[in-house]
Amino acid sequence: MATYASEPAADAFIILVSFIGIFFALYQFSLVQRVKLVDSSNGSGNGAPLLTSLGIDTTKLMGIYEAIRVGADSFLRAEYTICMYFIGAFGIVVLILTSYIEEKWHFDEGALTAVAFVAGGVTSIISGLIGMKVAVYANARTTVCAAGGNPWTDAFNCAFRAGSVMGFALCGLSMLILYSLVHLFAFHFDEWDTKTSETLKLMEALSGYGLGGSSVALFGRVGGGIYTKAADVGADLAGKVVQGIPEDDPRNPATIADNVGDNVGDVAGMGSDLFGSFAEATCAALVVASASETLVSEGKWPGLMFPVTISAGGILVCLMVSFVATHIKPVKKEADIETVLKLQLGLTTLLLTGAIGLLACMFLPEEFILYRVDATSITFTPLRAWVCTCMGLWSGCLIGFITEYYTSHSYKPVREVSQACETGAATNIIYGLALGYKSAVLPVSLLSIVVYVSFYLGDMYGVSLAALGMLSNLSTCLAIDVYGPICDNAGGIAEMAELPEHVRDVTDALDAAGNTTAAIGKGFAIGSACLVGIALFGAFITRSQLTMTKVSLLEPMIFASVIFGAMIPYWFSAMTMKSVGQAANEMVKEVARQFREIPGLLEGTPGHAPPDHAKCIEISTDASLREMIAPAVLVMTTPLAFGILLGNAPVAGMLAGAIVSSIQMAISSSNTGGAWDNAKKYVEKGSVSIDGVVQGKGSELHKAAVVGDTVGDPLKDTSGPALNIVMKLMAILSLVFADFFLSINNGKGLLMLPH
Amino acid sequence: MATYASEPAADAFIILVSFIGIFFALYQFSLVQRVKLVDSSNGSGNGAPLLTSLGIDTTKLMGIYEAIRVGADSFLRAEYTICMYFIGAFGIVVLILTSYIEEKWHFDEGALTAVAFVAGGVTSIISGLIGMKVAVYANARTTVCAAGGNPWTDAFNCAFRAGSVMGFALCGLSMLILYSLVHLFAFHFDEWDTKTSETLKLMEALSGYGLGGSSVALFGRVGGGIYTKAADVGADLAGKVVQGIPEDDPRNPATIADNVGDNVGDVAGMGSDLFGSFAEATCAALVVASASETLVSEGKWPGLMFPVTISAGGILVCLMVSFVATHIKPVKKEADIETVLKLQLGLTTLLLTGAIGLLACMFLPEEFILYRVDATSITFTPLRAWVCTCMGLWSGCLIGFITEYYTSHSYKPVREVSQACETGAATNIIYGLALGYKSAVLPVSLLSIVVYVSFYLGDMYGVSLAALGMLSNLSTCLAIDVYGPICDNAGGIAEMAELPEHVRDVTDALDAAGNTTAAIGKGFAIGSACLVGIALFGAFITRSQLTMTKVSLLEPMIFASVIFGAMIPYWFSAMTMKSVGQAANEMVKEVARQFREIPGLLEGTPGHAPPDHAKCIEISTDASLREMIAPAVLVMTTPLAFGILLGNAPVAGMLAGAIVSSIQMAISSSNTGGAWDNAKKYVEKGSVSIDGVVQGKGSELHKAAVVGDTVGDPLKDTSGPALNIVMKLMAILSLVFADFFLSINNGKGLLMLPH
Repeated sequence: MATYASEPAADAFIILVSFIGIFFALYQFSLVQRVKLVDSSNGSGNGAPLLTSLGIDTTKLMGIYEAIRVGADSFLRAEYTICMYFIGAFGIVVLILTSYIEEKWHFDEGALTAVAFVAGGVTSIISGLIGMKVAVYANARTTVCAAGGNPWTDAFNCAFRAGSVMGFALCGLSMLILYSLVHLFAFHFDEWDTKTSETLKLMEALSGYGLGGSSVALFGRVGGGIYTKAADVGADLAGKVVQGIPEDDPRNPATIADNVGDNVGDVAGMGSDLFGSFAEATCAALVVASASETLVSEGKWPGLMFPVTISAGGILVCLMVSFVATHIKPVKKEADIETVLKLQLGLTTLLLTGAIGLLACMFLPEEFILYRVDATSITFTPLRAWVCTCMGLWSGCLIGFITEYYTSHSYKPVREVSQACETGAATNIIYGLALGYKSAVLPVSLLSIVVYVSFYLGDMYGVSLAALGMLSNLSTCLAIDVYGPICDNAGGIAEMAELPEHVRDVTDALDAAGNTTAAIGKGFAIGSACLVGIALFGAFITRSQLTMTKVSLLEPMIFASVIFGAMIPYWFSAMTMKSVGQAANEMVKEVARQFREIPGLLEGTPGHAPPDHAKCIEISTDASLREMIAPAVLVMTTPLAFGILLGNAPVAGMLAGAIVSSIQMAISSSNTGGAWDNAKKYVEKGSVSIDGVVQGKGSELHKAAVVGDTVGDPLKDTSGPALNIVMKLMAILSLVFADFFLSINNGKGLLMLPH
Repeated sequence: MATYASEPAADAFIILVSFIGIFFALYQFSLVQRVKLVDSSNGSGNGAPLLTSLGIDTTKLMGIYEAIRVGADSFLRAEYTICMYFIGAFGIVVLILTSYIEEKWHFDEGALTAVAFVAGGVTSIISGLIGMKVAVYANARTTVCAAGGNPWTDAFNCAFRAGSVMGFALCGLSMLILYSLVHLFAFHFDEWDTKTSETLKLMEALSGYGLGGSSVALFGRVGGGIYTKAADVGADLAGKVVQGIPEDDPRNPATIADNVGDNVGDVAGMGSDLFGSFAEATCAALVVASASETLVSEGKWPGLMFPVTISAGGILVCLMVSFVATHIKPVKKEADIETVLKLQLGLTTLLLTGAIGLLACMFLPEEFILYRVDATSITFTPLRAWVCTCMGLWSGCLIGFITEYYTSHSYKPVREVSQACETGAATNIIYGLALGYKSAVLPVSLLSIVVYVSFYLGDMYGVSLAALGMLSNLSTCLAIDVYGPICDNAGGIAEMAELPEHVRDVTDALDAAGNTTAAIGKGFAIGSACLVGIALFGAFITRSQLTMTKVSLLEPMIFASVIFGAMIPYWFSAMTMKSVGQAANEMVKEVARQFREIPGLLEGTPGHAPPDHAKCIEISTDASLREMIAPAVLVMTTPLAFGILLGNAPVAGMLAGAIVSSIQMAISSSNTGGAWDNAKKYVEKGSVSIDGVVQGKGSELHKAAVVGDTVGDPLKDTSGPALNIVMKLMAILSLVFADFFLSINNGKGLLMLPH
């Protein structure tokens, strides 16, 4: 029995929604553009109307805005130049290695995979660029909005809309490019609808798209993560610890680099990361789906494309719900911000639950057969698809709120950590580490239930649907994620431009709410990465012709590989943590040098020479570009080395170990860092007291809290989130090169070790 | 073909060596006893001859010695009372659950398992007691030896011999009891030599011995670990951070508790841990060996008992080599200490390599068949046994030296951490965490190679031989391990008794060498726990009649269980870390109260009232006894809940996840903590300088180093080592209850979830 939707209907739906997403992003951007930084009415080129009306000189604000813009541009230019070289060079590797199938050269297939790889890489770069550009564009505008008029509504809307630009542009664009590629490839493999082997080849070539996206994301996450935290930790240590001046103080030469870092790390890096998840989850779903003959013969094109329609449905739902934030229930006071943001997540999840059911009924055949590796079959139905997808969707939401519980200072865990600062930095660290470890318990339990149910109901197809379900409200998640760094920057700009305190109060409140929701977003990112990783693992197994027995835990080589794989995230984290430590050290020394050598800077003597921001930006840039290479090499060569030397079964064991171990580390690193950050904020709010005496900023207790915050920076923004990519990238790399591994001594590897 | 050794020869060898070990321990003890604390020659009961001859009043020393002795006794009495209740109660559970086999009650088998369980638990308690008693006995004696005469030789020999008492008594005793149990059980299963099923039943009942040992070890490690670190962290924070007085200052009321802690945590806890490893590795080897019909029919009793002979050989070799330290190449100056200790490890490893080959040729038949789970067979030979055992032996040695590289301040990694303190506590923590993560790379790689080779050569029999190989020089390892806390205590006593500086110099040097070798010992403990865990996992699989397919990573339930299992060590560490944090907090507050309320204590006014040590001991005791329950419940109920609710295959998945994840965490936690400890010591030595100015004790840099040391305390001495037991205990628990799990819906569990 055929599906209700025809091929043209599927095309129309997906392509239309892609464009709707892109146009909505443009529309949101036009709204952000209406906030003027330059008061063109009076013809001079300096000063926004709002601020000039308040009698504030905006020269400084414009200068800072420009400095951040130039810094971010120059870093991304440098980073993406390296990425382009990488895409070119590794594209050739992809071309060659994926052309060699069954001891023959098939350059057409290799070329298509390479094209998909390049497209994925370029899309990732574009995603990062759009996000960064719009975030930088919106930060000073948010500051200006916070100065007068309806500060809460205007400033929130400015930041949230800028976030939406990223969210919808990324989702629309990446879906459009992916869908165009599938269509294009379908011309080449024109027997796809009658021969399963051709469908599989098509989808396998397509998986290059995920590989491209994810490998650029690795550079983005690691490079951006090192950049932002070297600057942040360096600025904190130099400013707060060494000299005792507040964060974002205009005298501190590292602050501009810190603000640039928010954009290149938290915006561009996060964007590439989540684009990678989306691309890989879709590829994994398509690869495993294409192995089902009945799906292809009965579901035809619409049935095959069901995974893409989930994302399309997500864009539409997120788009509608975004009006709730900007029009139906706009932010009018401080207390509204968090409610409005959480409402976005809750509502999209609720609406998508219905929408996904509808899509499953329309696009999937009433019944089709999925094959498991052991050749048993599963009769899959739209209902099962709905359950799997919703498991992902809802567990994502739950993981988000669990993450919030462990990282927000509204709840007991973080408050305990703040209180532990009473006896010094060491107890703060001990409590924080314990909190991070513990915060893994519930999310991991949830994930294991999702994996079990979706794996059981629909084998790896079920798992990839769960991953896509978790990613279905990606546009909203991204909007909220990007909202955070924009407000953080807006606050930094207000401080550095020495704007009146009421401006800073508004931006601080916006930022605080953003921190909470950012935690939720991080939970999503980790959870989806885990499911994507497992789905890709499954796709790799399918493609490698591995049997149940070959990947049994009772195979010596498998158990050994699992042990080895579980070590990879530790090695990777060691590298990234140390890179941040080293770069931060350099930064502190440079700041100290400037305070020593630039006369009047530290004292703030009127008319003193300005701090040398460019030098600090250079340190962060150099460090991140230099230090992102080694972790990338580790993650990319490990699966290759395993596959080439040991064969494909050990790759599977290693992947399973790495995924399982990365989840735990990613969750606990991110949450430990988030908790320390908010524990410090809780102390700064004046909420912690000893014997009735409030211990605020500047107290010994606060100093202890700052140590935790600083340690947490690389954990939560460098090594933790980068582990998401470790899980996914190693798996998709294995998937893309699965045929190549199989061609080496029939999948036994060069060493031909017995296993 | 039969083996070269007959049954009487095997009996004679094993029993004789057990007694030799025990008598050698007694002999060593008699040598320690010769050091007199009380100068009986002049009839008064106060003061050792050496010190009185130096004109030093020993009233204070005797008082401190007594206080530590009483404190340690009272804690162990309280702890072991709880353990005895636990052994009684859980013994009944063991009796009932292991009696229910194939839906019938077999109380004889249950009773034997319960007897073995009780014997294991009691042996573990005795091991801990012996170690603690002799360590406490020797600490003040080491201090006295360090005061005059040949301080280096005498003090070293005193501490090392006391360590040997523990090492040889534990190994001899536990082997004797185990061997007696096997013989006893062989009467009951008198068809063991003709029916493999009977042999298997015999060995399965015996595995209760390992369970008893390991569950008491859990309480010992966790309770002792919390005790020692609550006291240590509390004393450090209160003394160094809050009041600025040196460690072990007699005014600090927490110092006695700190010294007691070294004995109950590092000595008694470590002893129980390693006894558990020994007992479990032997049980695992015997269970898997008993499944080989050809080994039983051709190897007979000697062949079956080959695993026990490895340990017997180890005792003999360690005994001979110990004379190198005390007689052939005695310690004559500071530089000798480390060399002598390392020589012990190197020499025993070298000699054992030959000895094990000899034993394999003598006790094993020239060829026998081992069956793998997939029913394929392996032809096993003495050569293969030798390779497997030596893989374990040598990798243990290598892991030890790698651990030393990462935790000793003689090498670059720790020196970098010290240098990082320049920019504050936060960078110290970041560098330390990175070091810990990285230090897992080589040991884990080595372990995965050992697992692969021994698993491949001899299936799970090979893995358990590797574990026994790593444990074969246990007596020496234990002697060195116990040596450390004795010297640490000796130093503390010298400081508290205000003995002349030259005494403290000697004890400090002895302690420093002990720290290095303790790191090596920790590496051994973790590595052997990992191999033991995997061997027990294998024994569980054998007994559960699980097939290759059922524990394939492609089974939904297995993958989900692996994810869940990998989370257990995080949860466990969260509990133990937080317990230490809380207890340390209480301790700090108590110390602050005493300084506030006891007049003249802080100022050290002559004649001031003494600090209230008892109150601090009480805090540590209460905290550790209260807080050890929850982690124990987690570790013990998880396998039971899995087995009862979900069935035996999920237990296997969960175990694999937990073992794989524990290894990484145990290694990185222990090494991070060790590195911080030594980084602080490096700073205190005056080896770190900024712009040519040495930053010693009391500098800002030193304060940053102290924060790291304090954070590292619970990591390296509570959560890290306790993870060893997590790996082993969960596995042996599953093994002992495997038949019971199998009896619930034929191994599908109460929930009968499909998998």
